[in-house]
Amino acid sequence: MRSIPIVQIGLGGVGRELVRQVLATREALAKHYRLSLVYLALADSGGVRATGAALTRDEIEAALAAKAEGRSIATIAGKSSGMPWSSLALREAAIFVDVSAAPGHEMMLAERVAAGSRVVLANKLPLSAGLAQFQALMFDAATRYEATVGAGLPIIATLQALLDSGDTVTRIEAAMSGTLGYLCSQLEAGESLSTALRAAHALGYTEPDPRDDLSGADVARKALILARTCGLPWSINDIPAEPWFPPAMAGLSRDEFLARAEELDASFAARVAEARAVGGALRYVATVTPQGASVGLRIVPAEHPLASLRGADNLFSFTTARYAERPLVVRGPGAGQALTAAGVLADIVATAREM
Amino acid sequence: MRSIPIVQIGLGGVGRELVRQVLATREALAKHYRLSLVYLALADSGGVRATGAALTRDEIEAALAAKAEGRSIATIAGKSSGMPWSSLALREAAIFVDVSAAPGHEMMLAERVAAGSRVVLANKLPLSAGLAQFQALMFDAATRYEATVGAGLPIIATLQALLDSGDTVTRIEAAMSGTLGYLCSQLEAGESLSTALRAAHALGYTEPDPRDDLSGADVARKALILARTCGLPWSINDIPAEPWFPPAMAGLSRDEFLARAEELDASFAARVAEARAVGGALRYVATVTPQGASVGLRIVPAEHPLASLRGADNLFSFTTARYAERPLVVRGPGAGQALTAAGVLADIVATAREM
Ligand SMILES: NC(=O)c1ccc[n+]([C@@H]2O[C@H](COP(=O)([O-])OP(=O)(O)OC[C@H]3O[C@@H](n4cnc5c(N)ncnc54)[C@H](OP(=O)(O)O)[C@@H]3O)[C@@H](O)[C@H]2O)c1
Ligand SMILES: NC(=O)c1ccc[n+]([C@@H]2O[C@H](COP(=O)([O-])OP(=O)(O)OC[C@H]3O[C@@H](n4cnc5c(N)ncnc54)[C@H](OP(=O)(O)O)[C@@H]3O)[C@@H](O)[C@H]2O)c1
Repeated sequence: MRSIPIVQIGLGGVGRELVRQVLATREALAKHYRLSLVYLALADSGGVRATGAALTRDEIEAALAAKAEGRSIATIAGKSSGMPWSSLALREAAIFVDVSAAPGHEMMLAERVAAGSRVVLANKLPLSAGLAQFQALMFDAATRYEATVGAGLPIIATLQALLDSGDTVTRIEAAMSGTLGYLCSQLEAGESLSTALRAAHALGYTEPDPRDDLSGADVARKALILARTCGLPWSINDIPAEPWFPPAMAGLSRDEFLARAEELDASFAARVAEARAVGGALRYVATVTPQGASVGLRIVPAEHPLASLRGADNLFSFTTARYAERPLVVRGPGAGQALTAAGVLADIVATAREM
Repeated sequence: MRSIPIVQIGLGGVGRELVRQVLATREALAKHYRLSLVYLALADSGGVRATGAALTRDEIEAALAAKAEGRSIATIAGKSSGMPWSSLALREAAIFVDVSAAPGHEMMLAERVAAGSRVVLANKLPLSAGLAQFQALMFDAATRYEATVGAGLPIIATLQALLDSGDTVTRIEAAMSGTLGYLCSQLEAGESLSTALRAAHALGYTEPDPRDDLSGADVARKALILARTCGLPWSINDIPAEPWFPPAMAGLSRDEFLARAEELDASFAARVAEARAVGGALRYVATVTPQGASVGLRIVPAEHPLASLRGADNLFSFTTARYAERPLVVRGPGAGQALTAAGVLADIVATAREM
């Protein structure tokens, strides 16, 4: 039995679900792979909980309980501290699992990689910062990041397997925002954008400020991660995203923006009509080719895999030297805490098997 | 740099393409993973070529040249022999790659696993023989077999990642015969089965005897591999496949069968009409659930992912505890020498990273 130490950064929706999944799969992983995942430390924005040894099940449950009450784990008595996780001194190589939403972790994680640890990410930000940091994280293929794109869908693993076997990616086309996919479906069904948007907001399908979805910035970050995985030396500025609202509406308060959403209806109705006139479908598409990337609303022809998409599902289409005439397509729900945590856990297992 | 020894069994269409891909990716794998794949031995049905050390590039090219001339590698001067690969004595653990189409390898491969080697398969037969042999091959997760189902498509890796993260598979539905998918498309386009079949045979889309496709046996073997991967303790007899021809036509010679293919036309025309009447599509579908598996022609509703399938593409739909409402779907070309070899190579790389 090999014992694999884990340091988990982030105990939000995804992080807490991940802890539960790690605990729930312990027996199966022991039996199937003779692996034992042990938590060396847990961290949230308030600090870190580490006792110097593997946390016991009781200590882990206490951490979950504190979070459920809205407290930082730094408030738990015993070996918790208000120090950030980056100050942890470890005697052994571990898997650092970043399931936080925090910026600025790339340097600290790259230092851990240089010291022999491995990294697993659901947090997109360390990969969409500087290219040098991306490359430092990829040193010795030390970092896995399936959940950053498509949550639990096998996107990065698929792309990496294509590249490992010497294939050349010529084009990736993807719909990778569940929220924007949902809006496209509602528009197609004849709803106005403002109605669809307010409903989605009320149902909690959007970020608290829906402009965080509508800006396309999150899609652009994912497109950058795909491009960098292909070896393209780009930064986020190389991937402009077409926003769903004009610059003038960026300065409004959230409530003002939602109140004035009707101002967007006419132009979206026109684009839906345009798509219908040519028998196509309106989709918010990220396209990555070796020549460049783009993110925006596109009319896709009826026979394109993206046209068959409905609702919040994500879809990824890989055209390569070997998949030249017909693409390799992966499709399904691409968000949600349980699916995201499952993507992270599968990465942890794959990484642990190599240690 | 880690040197990973490989013994490759089979130098047919897939095997020779695999050798070329291994040679072509050497530099990239060295750079990216600090891995060096070296051939300890190559084997075909005539015997084995091994010099006691890693085969040089010249020795490998000589083996490819012999195969191109239709000779066994056992005819090459030097350290080749008419002995089977299973008689090879190795001092080290290696990856045994079975890209042959031969039955009866399961015991010998399982012995190598027990001795600490790893296995990668494109050959379905070692996995669809006895359950005990399947389990012996899976000991310590020693065997990978992506290419046995869907060629280069990420099917086994996706399924394994779902299982590793503690998900529960409730239903797999798949179209996994390119040939039968092509025939379904032609039927749907209004062609008779006999016309479509003779054209597919003439174009080399079918096995030399098309009944080897039409029996459904190959699809049943793939369904068995999916089921066993899910932990279901079944044998091939638990997965009856519906053949496309009546028992009376099984005893004909190949040419007699093709000459009499019109006898099948009426019943297929009726099934196509039946599908059209309910607005559905006719597909040859394998269904695997914990309660049982079936393989046969089915009418799938228009909104089912399988209905959108065209031509020879494969499609796999995974419904699980976490992908309960909307499935995870993988789709694309599921056959061909280059894609199959690429699936094998990606498995070799994943295995090598663990050694
Ligand atoms: N949910 C999805 O569908 C999905 C899909 C793909 C990827 N992701 C990514 O997964 C990550 C987590 O998502 P989530 O929904 O769980 O977010 P969340 O609920 O907002 O949780 C974020 C967690 O990160 C912690 N955190 C913030 N700054 C930190 C710091 N400097 N050091 C340590 N911990 C810090 C927070 O601490 P406090 O508890 O103290 O606030 C919180 O526990 C995000 O990067 C997100 O983009 C999510
Ligand atoms: N082609 C595809 O699209 C595809 C897709 C998925 C999986 N596969 C699987 O991949 C495998 C290879 O396919 P293929 O198209 O390359 O077949 P193939 O062209 O018929 O080649 C088979 C090879 O296996 C060798 N062989 C036979 N018996 C052997 C034995 N006892 N020991 C060692 N070698 C032996 C043959 O030797 P000789 O050269 O001496 O005859 C030949 O080199 C098959 O299992 C097939 O089902 C193929």
